[in-house]
Amino acid sequence: MKIETIIRLLQEVRERNPLVHNITNTVVTNFTANGLLALGASPVMAYAKEEVADMAKIAGALVLNIGTLNETEVEAMMIAGKSANKHGVPVVFDPVGAGATPYRTQTARKLLKELKISIIRGNAGEIANVIGESWEVKGVDAGEGVGDVVTLAKTAAKQLDCLVVITGKDDVVSNGEQTVLIENGHPILTKVTGTGCLLTSVIGAFASVSIDLMAASISALVYYGTAAEIAAEKTAHHGPGSFQVEFLNQLATVTVEDLMERGKINRAEKALNFWERDLS
Amino acid sequence: MKIETIIRLLQEVRERNPLVHNITNTVVTNFTANGLLALGASPVMAYAKEEVADMAKIAGALVLNIGTLNETEVEAMMIAGKSANKHGVPVVFDPVGAGATPYRTQTARKLLKELKISIIRGNAGEIANVIGESWEVKGVDAGEGVGDVVTLAKTAAKQLDCLVVITGKDDVVSNGEQTVLIENGHPILTKVTGTGCLLTSVIGAFASVSIDLMAASISALVYYGTAAEIAAEKTAHHGPGSFQVEFLNQLATVTVEDLMERGKINRAEKALNFWERDLS
Amino acid sequence: MKIETIIRLLQEVRERNPLVHNITNTVVTNFTANGLLALGASPVMAYAKEEVADMAKIAGALVLNIGTLNETEVEAMMIAGKSANKHGVPVVFDPVGAGATPYRTQTARKLLKELKISIIRGNAGEIANVIGESWEVKGVDAGEGVGDVVTLAKTAAKQLDCLVVITGKDDVVSNGEQTVLIENGHPILTKVTGTGCLLTSVIGAFASVSIDLMAASISALVYYGTAAEIAAEKTAHHGPGSFQVEFLNQLATVTVEDLMERGKINRAEKALNFWERDLS
Repeated sequence: MKIETIIRLLQEVRERNPLVHNITNTVVTNFTANGLLALGASPVMAYAKEEVADMAKIAGALVLNIGTLNETEVEAMMIAGKSANKHGVPVVFDPVGAGATPYRTQTARKLLKELKISIIRGNAGEIANVIGESWEVKGVDAGEGVGDVVTLAKTAAKQLDCLVVITGKDDVVSNGEQTVLIENGHPILTKVTGTGCLLTSVIGAFASVSIDLMAASISALVYYGTAAEIAAEKTAHHGPGSFQVEFLNQLATVTVEDLMERGKINRAEKALNFWERDLS
Repeated sequence: MKIETIIRLLQEVRERNPLVHNITNTVVTNFTANGLLALGASPVMAYAKEEVADMAKIAGALVLNIGTLNETEVEAMMIAGKSANKHGVPVVFDPVGAGATPYRTQTARKLLKELKISIIRGNAGEIANVIGESWEVKGVDAGEGVGDVVTLAKTAAKQLDCLVVITGKDDVVSNGEQTVLIENGHPILTKVTGTGCLLTSVIGAFASVSIDLMAASISALVYYGTAAEIAAEKTAHHGPGSFQVEFLNQLATVTVEDLMERGKINRAEKALNFWERDLS
Repeated sequence: MKIETIIRLLQEVRERNPLVHNITNTVVTNFTANGLLALGASPVMAYAKEEVADMAKIAGALVLNIGTLNETEVEAMMIAGKSANKHGVPVVFDPVGAGATPYRTQTARKLLKELKISIIRGNAGEIANVIGESWEVKGVDAGEGVGDVVTLAKTAAKQLDCLVVITGKDDVVSNGEQTVLIENGHPILTKVTGTGCLLTSVIGAFASVSIDLMAASISALVYYGTAAEIAAEKTAHHGPGSFQVEFLNQLATVTVEDLMERGKINRAEKALNFWERDLS
């Protein structure tokens, strides 16, 4: 994928201000809304079963996040998801904490079974638990570790029949056939709550302007990771409070030049014998 | 209205620390509480039907916001509102997203019908939808646009029998007879989630120290817009993250001199043939 | 207690990254999670009755906070608390607003009655209301005021059979026999919402690495107050927005040297005839 594609999609999001309907957890609502606003998207949170079908159908993307799930909310997710499916609105799913409790794992699987999910984003442990693989998160480094996450992403994409985004030290995107590695980002992201959840919503925003879900996901990851890198360089020595503030600034102000200079999209492990897209 | 009235009311809020009971949406709770604390008010969020009547009756103002409404919360709003009405506590209402889904529009109308609302604050689209006018938000500029929003505010005030505050590029306050325009504020407010919701709660704080609801609303708008202008001048070039932090700073530290220097209260469109209050 | 104990416990939290399960109010979820991450703990919020028992049993501590309680959440607290009790996980309780409404007071008492609470943290008014004493908060100064809060803490500790932490101008920790005063902190903490709630969760993090609950609580208070002092010195003249950001920075970066230089643990009022622990 060419960096020009990423730049074009970012510009489309900033110009079109797509409505992103989030049913997300109570910890990250504010940060998610501010991050989407900084990107140029138009966030809305709506949870009532009386209105989620109406909201989802006018949205550019629907984002479901089970971070603080309960039965009422899951019911709303199901109604919203079916409405999105019916009206061709992409559904992006974040299985927060899948594997931590049986309830989360089962709910994640139920949503994946009953809805047509376009993209799932989680860390390796969450994705592995969703597809029933026992997984010990080993850390993703440029060496041997990468192969495992790449395999996991491919396996999950085939099994779930959707695009899979696994984030960690490096990020992996796979549709089951093609798999791409994005090396942008910064470790201090793990010291601010909701950076994974916001990323899922940002992927939703990009998915709302591109029917090519892989291009949308890669673009979101490069944009997000680049903003994080710049923010970290400016503030990480101060601490996570300053980083969070500057990260929101960068999500709003990151430039085309920043993306061209820093975007790091790599072909995944050659030894795994699959072919990448038009990586330039 | 004289700027001295605004200054006096701000000082009263800062000295009396009125309790403002908020039943608001999950996206803005933290920002609302921090904004009210910065102002000098004492925020409380209480949602359970078992306690909202008790909390509302001891509050200086009750603020109802349907940003992430559900049936349980609407029931609590009704109980709290009736308690506030009974005990003479002003009720300020923010019909977030009215018009976006039928559920929101109907709920907004139900609350307005069954409760005595003192002040309603929304954008032009929300207010228009609440009173059943088809409204295409045109943007409020100093020229032709203003007339329409002024007319809308007056119409809504008469129909709803309450004070109406419509915010946008400029802000309009109307009680149906008198209509005032406030030109403070800054566009970057639209890049931070909850700035409208917090303003509604700030109006509540001012309403708790003044039975003159128009004076309270104008004071809140001038104070709020002035703080935003100063914060934007200091930080807007950095981005919305820095602006939000500085805006909270300014809500706490904005001075009498700032208000005297920057307060912009203007008579509304003369051609509409109504008389303003003692605008100096 | 020696400052070395505090330092050791802080290092243990930072190294072990204990999982702290919070069932807390909607206003402070984000700030609580970010504060715990800054400390080095691993926060999780889980509220559904279907999963709280599973989550509580794998946690290092369970924190219950009734800031925006409702019946569903109280039911979840009860299930989580019983699971924590069964599995030896310490339960830390924050009775936010006890005394403000009968519902809060009754719920606080019910939780204290039916669960084994390890530590309760509140302000003087909340603790007094929980144990049924009429209490007019008088302010805690180094002179006469202190005696009353110390007595209150001791009385509450005996009556509730748990460790009591009362925070205010100074902070008091009592197990009924031993009572200690901590004089760290800064008044601007009261201008940021959730600083009390986050402290309760921080106490939970320390309690997860120390079976000596008094050592854990004192350590948490000194660490937290020291971070606040440094942050206030750097930013308080700007306002509460800047303070909050810097406070998160300091929670992440406060050093052993900072604690040794600033830690202020004092023996409580001598006239009350009790003996402190090994205060050095």
